[in-house]
Amino acid sequence: MFSENHKTAGVAYPKGFKAAGVRAGIKKSGNLDVAVIYTEKTANVAGVFTQNLVAAAPVRVSKIVVGTGTAHGVVANAGCANACTGEQGLRDAEMMAEIAAKELNCRQDDIIVASTGVIGVNLPMDKMETGIKKAVAELSEEGSVNAGNAIITTDTYSKACATEIEIGGKEVRFGAIAKGSGMIRPNMATMLCFITTDIDIDQKLLQEALSEINEVTFNMVSVDGDMSTNDMVVVLANGAAGNEKITEKNSDYEKFYSTLKNICTEIAKRIAADGEGATKFLTIKVSGAENFDDAKKVGMSVANSPLVKTAFFGEDPNWGRVICAVGYSGVKIVPEKTVIKFGDIPVYAHSVGAKYDESALRKVMSDKNIVVGIELGLGDSEAEIWTCDFSYEYVKINGEYHT
Amino acid sequence: MFSENHKTAGVAYPKGFKAAGVRAGIKKSGNLDVAVIYTEKTANVAGVFTQNLVAAAPVRVSKIVVGTGTAHGVVANAGCANACTGEQGLRDAEMMAEIAAKELNCRQDDIIVASTGVIGVNLPMDKMETGIKKAVAELSEEGSVNAGNAIITTDTYSKACATEIEIGGKEVRFGAIAKGSGMIRPNMATMLCFITTDIDIDQKLLQEALSEINEVTFNMVSVDGDMSTNDMVVVLANGAAGNEKITEKNSDYEKFYSTLKNICTEIAKRIAADGEGATKFLTIKVSGAENFDDAKKVGMSVANSPLVKTAFFGEDPNWGRVICAVGYSGVKIVPEKTVIKFGDIPVYAHSVGAKYDESALRKVMSDKNIVVGIELGLGDSEAEIWTCDFSYEYVKINGEYHT
Repeated sequence: MFSENHKTAGVAYPKGFKAAGVRAGIKKSGNLDVAVIYTEKTANVAGVFTQNLVAAAPVRVSKIVVGTGTAHGVVANAGCANACTGEQGLRDAEMMAEIAAKELNCRQDDIIVASTGVIGVNLPMDKMETGIKKAVAELSEEGSVNAGNAIITTDTYSKACATEIEIGGKEVRFGAIAKGSGMIRPNMATMLCFITTDIDIDQKLLQEALSEINEVTFNMVSVDGDMSTNDMVVVLANGAAGNEKITEKNSDYEKFYSTLKNICTEIAKRIAADGEGATKFLTIKVSGAENFDDAKKVGMSVANSPLVKTAFFGEDPNWGRVICAVGYSGVKIVPEKTVIKFGDIPVYAHSVGAKYDESALRKVMSDKNIVVGIELGLGDSEAEIWTCDFSYEYVKINGEYHT
Repeated sequence: MFSENHKTAGVAYPKGFKAAGVRAGIKKSGNLDVAVIYTEKTANVAGVFTQNLVAAAPVRVSKIVVGTGTAHGVVANAGCANACTGEQGLRDAEMMAEIAAKELNCRQDDIIVASTGVIGVNLPMDKMETGIKKAVAELSEEGSVNAGNAIITTDTYSKACATEIEIGGKEVRFGAIAKGSGMIRPNMATMLCFITTDIDIDQKLLQEALSEINEVTFNMVSVDGDMSTNDMVVVLANGAAGNEKITEKNSDYEKFYSTLKNICTEIAKRIAADGEGATKFLTIKVSGAENFDDAKKVGMSVANSPLVKTAFFGEDPNWGRVICAVGYSGVKIVPEKTVIKFGDIPVYAHSVGAKYDESALRKVMSDKNIVVGIELGLGDSEAEIWTCDFSYEYVKINGEYHT
């Protein structure tokens, strides 16, 4: 579904979208740091944002844009989060939109604004202005890779994908770029994800789909239990595919919905796998819960446990730490009914350790991808959480990342 | 208040108490691993226990002992937690009490049982039996240091203290030994604390005092956000001081209460300072909250943030991560009213970074003890949380600690 070619096309794959990423000197490294995504044809827009009460200025500005229901583009930077920057920060975020809007001949409230990087530092607006102008000048259908690289921070690679479906005989395209890394957890921590599509769909349905899908994709990712001030997922749908406009939850909507969900799932998993310092990608599958919230709570308790995460880093099948985290999750579990598996191998069953083939288990633990199964035996609900291990490198990245 | 001499006397400082710690071969290292504390005169007993639903066998057994209201002693081991060990584990925990009771000429339900160490492994009961017999034979008024060393795991040192007060002309003594280290957090994670006193006090008052004090001392400690299956704090009060028995909340009770609180505060702080791999002791002081629960929630959110903890390890004054953790704590804070200080230096005030003297702040960050002040400006309630930083050593200890 998501080929390398598609990834390269990214957010510029859907008809009518262009992108660019340029160097503006905001990142200390000198790497690409300002991205612009643009559609001349007006797009319906939907967004979900961080729930951190200390929301950054760009989040506050972009919420207003999503509130208008339509947009023409995105301007984003990495290297400076424009968070905890007070009135000046708000003015700077608005100014980013204003500069981009002027260059793109649209209204200021047609431009989504996003920033990621160090907290508490004001944006260098002179560099920003030069950067935005340069990016707009470079907008092209080949610009998604640069745009993707311009929004990453400690990510080891840019996350991107694209795909297409057929709706009523018309080809409908989707593309996405995203950044993740540290501070990722439910309720959307430092991650940015921009999704473009040329589908024609009612704005309210678009927002409803995104909000629902966000709950079971991006909000199921945990890297370190922290939640950032800057996160957002935004979808722009410009209708250029020419499909019959989706205005109700018909079979076209279902097709659209499952495609958007696949994209968000793919990006969310890649974000978890590329958590800061990660050497393992862990999938925590909780089943047999009384309801979804319980299943998620148990899974998150395990995914957020530094003891569990360091054990996987050390390839130690320490199921004791897993059942321990299950036990303090706040969900009324019953140890006698609980079964824990690493891969396909039961390691804890019904309140005691299970007998297992040590060499088979060692093989599971040495894999880069490990599935931890937790069956609660209490009901039919389940949840899947994606996370990573906790390494020396995480401490290094975050102990040495200076403000 | 807690001199080195007092620490040495520890749990054997109060009249009528003896202690011992011996090598039984349960720890792989061959260090001391079985402790016994004993009072011939019957003691009133109070206890608080882990809230983890996967409570270890010794916790279940000891809760029953506390339920009887009286006890004669404690038998504890390190190296094996006897957790997730099912029916066999319960039988083994009961057997520990039975062996000790036989040697001490008391009833099985007079013996508190505690274990700490690896989860999911059965106790080597032959070694345990030999160890308990040896420990009982060695009981003495000089045995507290050995007892303290016999209950530690990855702790770098044993925590102990002792003190005395005067009540109605009588000298009343208190002593304590404790172990902490990883997996420490509110609701009592892998920590054991045994407090002895020769005060004469009603059992219900003793339990009430301990439960209250636990909330504002041991439950204010966070090392890594994990909560263990095995924790307990137990107080034995044998009445040997000969004071007029405390049966109501009079001034004698107040004196007793504040002394017990001081002991628990001291031990709790030492446990935080000796968290696995800790290089810094952090005190998170939250003030201006609407109520205690909010203050605690904000403080714990900061104390449990791996990003905050790695920043302090790197001596980076990254207040952005602190305000970020305040923002996602779940408490309705108002960024414009919030002030954050490192030491005495405001670093964030009213939604933006504060101007500060960089060299003065560098000095604060380089201290071993750092106070993080968080003033919310919303009310009069406050809370103080004790925690430590997050180092390479933490990852090493927990990635290499094999099951």
